[in-house]
Amino acid sequence: MKYLVHMEVDIPRDLPAEERSAVIAREKEYSQQLQRDGRWPEIWRVVGEYANYSVFDVGSHDELHELLQGLPLFPYMTIDVTPLAAHPSDIKA
Amino acid sequence: MKYLVHMEVDIPRDLPAEERSAVIAREKEYSQQLQRDGRWPEIWRVVGEYANYSVFDVGSHDELHELLQGLPLFPYMTIDVTPLAAHPSDIKA
Amino acid sequence: MKYLVHMEVDIPRDLPAEERSAVIAREKEYSQQLQRDGRWPEIWRVVGEYANYSVFDVGSHDELHELLQGLPLFPYMTIDVTPLAAHPSDIKA
Amino acid sequence: MKYLVHMEVDIPRDLPAEERSAVIAREKEYSQQLQRDGRWPEIWRVVGEYANYSVFDVGSHDELHELLQGLPLFPYMTIDVTPLAAHPSDIKA
Amino acid sequence: MKYLVHMEVDIPRDLPAEERSAVIAREKEYSQQLQRDGRWPEIWRVVGEYANYSVFDVGSHDELHELLQGLPLFPYMTIDVTPLAAHPSDIKA
Amino acid sequence: MKYLVHMEVDIPRDLPAEERSAVIAREKEYSQQLQRDGRWPEIWRVVGEYANYSVFDVGSHDELHELLQGLPLFPYMTIDVTPLAAHPSDIKA
Amino acid sequence: MKYLVHMEVDIPRDLPAEERSAVIAREKEYSQQLQRDGRWPEIWRVVGEYANYSVFDVGSHDELHELLQGLPLFPYMTIDVTPLAAHPSDIKA
Amino acid sequence: MKYLVHMEVDIPRDLPAEERSAVIAREKEYSQQLQRDGRWPEIWRVVGEYANYSVFDVGSHDELHELLQGLPLFPYMTIDVTPLAAHPSDIKA
Amino acid sequence: MKYLVHMEVDIPRDLPAEERSAVIAREKEYSQQLQRDGRWPEIWRVVGEYANYSVFDVGSHDELHELLQGLPLFPYMTIDVTPLAAHPSDIKA
Amino acid sequence: MKYLVHMEVDIPRDLPAEERSAVIAREKEYSQQLQRDGRWPEIWRVVGEYANYSVFDVGSHDELHELLQGLPLFPYMTIDVTPLAAHPSDIKA
Repeated sequence: MKYLVHMEVDIPRDLPAEERSAVIAREKEYSQQLQRDGRWPEIWRVVGEYANYSVFDVGSHDELHELLQGLPLFPYMTIDVTPLAAHPSDIKA
Repeated sequence: MKYLVHMEVDIPRDLPAEERSAVIAREKEYSQQLQRDGRWPEIWRVVGEYANYSVFDVGSHDELHELLQGLPLFPYMTIDVTPLAAHPSDIKA
Repeated sequence: MKYLVHMEVDIPRDLPAEERSAVIAREKEYSQQLQRDGRWPEIWRVVGEYANYSVFDVGSHDELHELLQGLPLFPYMTIDVTPLAAHPSDIKA
Repeated sequence: MKYLVHMEVDIPRDLPAEERSAVIAREKEYSQQLQRDGRWPEIWRVVGEYANYSVFDVGSHDELHELLQGLPLFPYMTIDVTPLAAHPSDIKA
Repeated sequence: MKYLVHMEVDIPRDLPAEERSAVIAREKEYSQQLQRDGRWPEIWRVVGEYANYSVFDVGSHDELHELLQGLPLFPYMTIDVTPLAAHPSDIKA
Repeated sequence: MKYLVHMEVDIPRDLPAEERSAVIAREKEYSQQLQRDGRWPEIWRVVGEYANYSVFDVGSHDELHELLQGLPLFPYMTIDVTPLAAHPSDIKA
Repeated sequence: MKYLVHMEVDIPRDLPAEERSAVIAREKEYSQQLQRDGRWPEIWRVVGEYANYSVFDVGSHDELHELLQGLPLFPYMTIDVTPLAAHPSDIKA
Repeated sequence: MKYLVHMEVDIPRDLPAEERSAVIAREKEYSQQLQRDGRWPEIWRVVGEYANYSVFDVGSHDELHELLQGLPLFPYMTIDVTPLAAHPSDIKA
Repeated sequence: MKYLVHMEVDIPRDLPAEERSAVIAREKEYSQQLQRDGRWPEIWRVVGEYANYSVFDVGSHDELHELLQGLPLFPYMTIDVTPLAAHPSDIKA
Repeated sequence: MKYLVHMEVDIPRDLPAEERSAVIAREKEYSQQLQRDGRWPEIWRVVGEYANYSVFDVGSHDELHELLQGLPLFPYMTIDVTPLAAHPSDIKA
């Protein structure tokens, strides 16, 4: 099942620089792991913003919430989730 | 270049039924043509709404505007366009 | 899987009275059928509005969209869907 | 009487870790106590957010306000309350 | 139990003048009946708008919804309901 | 002249506890003084929020502003004022 | 007492041209009468919109509501009223 | 040329009291200077808020921006500017 | 003086086709005349919308309002105007 | 390809004065470099705000994002990007 997920990141300025770098590195690793196993098939940067639009493909709401809550940047994110259904015009559906 | 496009459809109730069916059929054909030539790679239904989120992949803003303006349902749509850049964590980028 | 669904109804004034009554009756029957088979476990009226909050329990986004799209009042509704996950404090989870 | 309650939690980053854990534990205990005595019959996590939708079933506005104000996380919450009436299509009503 | 209710009225222009006058007269009578029996203790005009803020004092959400739904102008109103609790500083509480 | 006033309170977390208690006590005293002299005839708690809806009855905008500005909690409040006129259906008008 | 009033005008397209001209002429006459007697001291056009910002100077909310409700264009207006108090820096106050 | 300007003030709590008093005094002097030379003809307090609506009368956008940017409280303000044109009903125009 | 102007167009569906074509042709001619005389130096289509962002360069608010009000499509437009000042980093200023 | 970009700046008060001056100076230099090479053809101050509207002219979304992300003030900005297409009435197109 697909979900469109919008994530906006706002890392507090007073986070020490090394902690900041570390959490961003862990976020990247975490994201790429999920991309590789097929559960996070798309991720795009919103132009001009520290934000992304992503597509997740998972088996349940609970699974998606667990994945999002596990994001290293989760404490600094505002997340918005839209469930997606098959479109009758989709040639792949 | 990728764009996330949100389309909300509101066909007026007083459109004759056959005209309505015809425009929906033309919309489907138009969309599938663009899906096949690779310029409209993704289309999803927003659950519970007469709306979709789509990804377009075209060479310029002008090209995208021409495609959207040519949609048979364009006169009945509210469209919102978000330009997408490559994300540094994207394993495909 | 649970979804919170908000439905606002706005039946056009120029719908003939008997058509109006008929569609409301079909809506009730449709809703009660889904309540009985367990897929629409909760429905509440929002006080002072022609609107409801409902909980749906279905297997997929596609199934939910099909159910909502089939509502006799669907053409006159504005629908908003929120996916719900298990809460860690829920004594039933 | 039923109320739909939306709670968004935003615990300040500078709350000491042990205080944070303690308040979350007290919140859980408080919530489960109310779930057991029937006044907080439903609680769901909003997917991707530190937020929940809950249903309360109490005898009066005053009682609900007292319960909500007593939440250990109340100082860190934004709460929105919607009164719910019986729906004419509800098979349980 | 008290509720603050905001009602905005938008009577369609194509309602025949006599029907318009009749529904406004019935609304006034309906409102004054409820004011007299104590369930609609306050009603104020919002300056510059065809709208009012009212206070209702009823026994349950269901009772309030029934009263509001019965308003002769209900089909032309947008209604917003806020449940009110006793305030700790209220000298009358 | 009547005004509907909505006050939302947000006391900063770093206000020392005794200062916090003191300002809340002064606020209560200030409010009750104005309730007693008839200029603040109604105050209700908004359920689930640190907010109130109040009715003020004063002789002029300047008088109301002076009263509100003098609230001990004024520095921590967001205030919204709506002027109220007599309603033609009001049986007390 | 001063009030800032924002008026947005939306005359329905199907109003016959002569009726439209007549109501606009009556509006102008009505406005100028109130300007001359000092109760409508300021009126400005919002650039690019069929809207104005005005200042009214009247003795009570009831008087203002009566004036606004009597505007020939009132049925086609959306009106927003802000009560104004003397400013401590005003050299005229 | 006239502009309607809305200014909302939010002085940070941690500004030392004497600095706060000083900046408010400088703001008053600055405002009154501009009122006297005719470029800031109107200033009103918004009832219940630390905000004002003002009218400026200057020769160009650049001049207005320079004046506003020079406000001692500018760093703590949220400002909104609306250009005003002559109204065809204005008896002074 | 520069203004950024956002125009959204919504031509009613029931406007006869020839009237529609005629008004669009007159709009184009009107716009190009102003572009040629330097008062409308920039006009861009907002991608996916029947809307434009334009820059106007005129001597006063009154002149701009007169130009906008004279647009053949003015009755079908929603217009938003932002006054622009010179930017200190502008190499042309 | 053109983009309209809105940038709002909010430099934290606790940034040391020399750091503040330095970042503003770097921002100016960075902006003027891009203006000179033709990729940032327009920049205007929004009157009364620490904000600008700019036009960028670049070859791709990725290029724009890279430019914006490289702004010295980027960490303190809220940026909004609108893709612009050629307008059929543009005499320069």
